[in-house]
Formats: sequence, structure tokens, C-alpha cells
Amino acid sequence: MAGSPLHTFRVRTEAREELREVTSLVADTIAAKGGSGLATIFVPHTSAGVTINENADRDVARDMLLWLQRLVPNSDEFRHMEGNSDAHIKTTLVGNSVTIPYTGGRLRLGTWQGIYLCEFDGPRTRTVELFLP
Amino acid sequence: MAGSPLHTFRVRTEAREELREVTSLVADTIAAKGGSGLATIFVPHTSAGVTINENADRDVARDMLLWLQRLVPNSDEFRHMEGNSDAHIKTTLVGNSVTIPYTGGRLRLGTWQGIYLCEFDGPRTRTVELFLP
Amino acid sequence: MAGSPLHTFRVRTEAREELREVTSLVADTIAAKGGSGLATIFVPHTSAGVTINENADRDVARDMLLWLQRLVPNSDEFRHMEGNSDAHIKTTLVGNSVTIPYTGGRLRLGTWQGIYLCEFDGPRTRTVELFLP
Repeated sequence: MAGSPLHTFRVRTEAREELREVTSLVADTIAAKGGSGLATIFVPHTSAGVTINENADRDVARDMLLWLQRLVPNSDEFRHMEGNSDAHIKTTLVGNSVTIPYTGGRLRLGTWQGIYLCEFDGPRTRTVELFLP
Repeated sequence: MAGSPLHTFRVRTEAREELREVTSLVADTIAAKGGSGLATIFVPHTSAGVTINENADRDVARDMLLWLQRLVPNSDEFRHMEGNSDAHIKTTLVGNSVTIPYTGGRLRLGTWQGIYLCEFDGPRTRTVELFLP
Repeated sequence: MAGSPLHTFRVRTEAREELREVTSLVADTIAAKGGSGLATIFVPHTSAGVTINENADRDVARDMLLWLQRLVPNSDEFRHMEGNSDAHIKTTLVGNSVTIPYTGGRLRLGTWQGIYLCEFDGPRTRTVELFLP
């Protein structure tokens, strides 16, 4: 009953840019498994990433998306023919994985921390992988 | 005598924005434990992160904080009522964890690398977690 | 025949700024080892990092380097005497490690994902460490 260390989720996003919270997907899987270790969340995309940030006030996510647009607009100088270089660059700035300790079947997130899939070129159905060794 | 894989430190910061080196906290714990593996440093906050950068010339940390302020000023466009959206955004850009191999009880940091707690909304007492599997 | 979990590669870069793909170095090592787990790629430098991004159209890498220059120019306001604060700041934005699950001796990268050493102050010979527990 040990199961595979790898858990795969599909997440539907609903806008070109969106921070979608996936904390409960991760927390529920760890609660079912129990034990202690290091949880790694990996996003196998190049125009979507994953980050940890505040989940109390939704305006934090709104402000973050706004400012990432200011920092990386869709410039005329970009050459990539698909026209989504802004999404690729934001993904590298945010990153494709987060790593979080868990003990006794509970993620050791801080009081205000949530895990967010960062959609930068949606809406799409995205994959989120959770690795629990 | 194996002990828990999780080590928790409290670090006091002294300014709103500060890069505070925590390399010795990590290195000393690994030296006491010995062995080889992968060290993960995790910061359970949403307005403070952790990064690796140069620890020879303190001006690198100063230049980095200056430029992060240029990139993410505290804009009038932000709506988050606590007024620290800049700190949340910087935390996502820098990240909440770093991962470093160690062998024979020694961190395999490069010659110029140090580990820095990145305070973006201090001064506060922050938590730094070190996971050594 | 188990071997060490740590594999070290030397990579020669050819310009001040370059995204050099190292996916095959990592994939070939994992194929030779087999098995499943979490691969960590760590770069022990302070003016070079590592990221995952698109490897189909080379213009994505070009656009990313261009925009990182726009975001972090070599400002007159920097004090670091070596004159490469831009490279240090970009390294912190991109990060020093990436973590990727593998199963059955195969990296679970997404269709378009490649692993890139990010040179920001070359040309130099850089070290890339791969940790396979």
C-alpha cells in the first residue's frame, strides 16, 4: 500500500494569467500518505510555473500578476514566433518547482503561505506533479 | 542519536530590507550531523525568502536590494491593504527555498557562495527551516 | 556499482551571456543509472544559474537574455567593485538549482522543457552538479 512517490494532478485554468491555489491538492495527498519528508511540486510546462505566497488576501495574487505584466510586457522586441515570450520569461522568474517539508502528514507551510500554480499563457489544462519520497 | 531531519532556527532581522547571511547556521548543523545528501533550506514566510549569492563583497547584497526596489517599488496601483505587496512579489522572484548538496559533513557551496535570508518587510523575527534527510 | 549520488560536469560557455542547454548531460546520466527519484541540478556559482525553459525555438532563450538585460542593466548606481552586479542579481532571479522527477531512468520533463545553464558573466568554464539520491 506504499504507492508511487509521484502523484499527478490536472488543473484547469480560466484566464491568460492566473494564480490558482493548489494547496489542498498537495495537503490532502500528504494527509492520506502520512509520515514526514520533503514534498516537491513540479510543473512540466514552459509558460506556467509554481510559487508560494499569501493566501489570505486575494489582492496579493492580483498585485503580483499586475506587476509581472509591468516587468515583462509582451515587447515588440521579442522574436519568438508564438508571441508568448513574456509567459516563458515569467515562468523562469517564478520557477518550475517548490519544495516544502512535511511532518506527521502535514505540510509545514507558514501561517499565510499557499501554493499557487502560476498560469501565464492560458486558459489551458495544466499538469502539476507532486513527488513524495 | 540520529535526530530529526528538520532543524528550525530563529533569525532576527534589523531593517525593512536586509540580506542576512545564514550560511554558518546551515554549515554547522551539517558538520555536526556529518554524512552526505541534499540540504534544503525553507523559509515559511510570504514577505521573506532565501537565496544564494556572493558573500565576499557586501556591496553585492546592497546592490541587489537596491535593484529589487527599482524593479518592484511600492506602487500606488497595488490594492493589498497591508501595503506590502512589494515584499510579497520580491519573495516570489527570489523564492522560498534553496537546495544544496553536501558530502562528508560539508556543504558543497561554490567559493563565493553564501546563503542569505532575504528580509523584505522587517524588522522581524523570522524562521528558517533546514531539512537534512 | 551503485556509485556516488553526485555527478559533476564542466561546461564551457562562449559569451558574456548565454543560455546553454545541458538537458542531455542530465538525461544520459539518469538513463545510465536507471530507477526513479528526484534529480537536483545545482550550479555552484554566483554569476551563473540554472533554469528550465523551452528548447524548441532558440528565440525563447534570445528573448529571455534580452529581457533580463532590460530588467537588470549594469547600472551606474551599483557599488560592487567587480562591476558584475547585474550578473549576481540575474542569478538570484533565476536561481541556482532545479529539481525534476524521474521514473524508469527517464527525466519527467514536459514536452517543451529543456534545462539551461544560465551564464551571466562569461565566457568561463562552469561547474554543474547533478544529485541523484
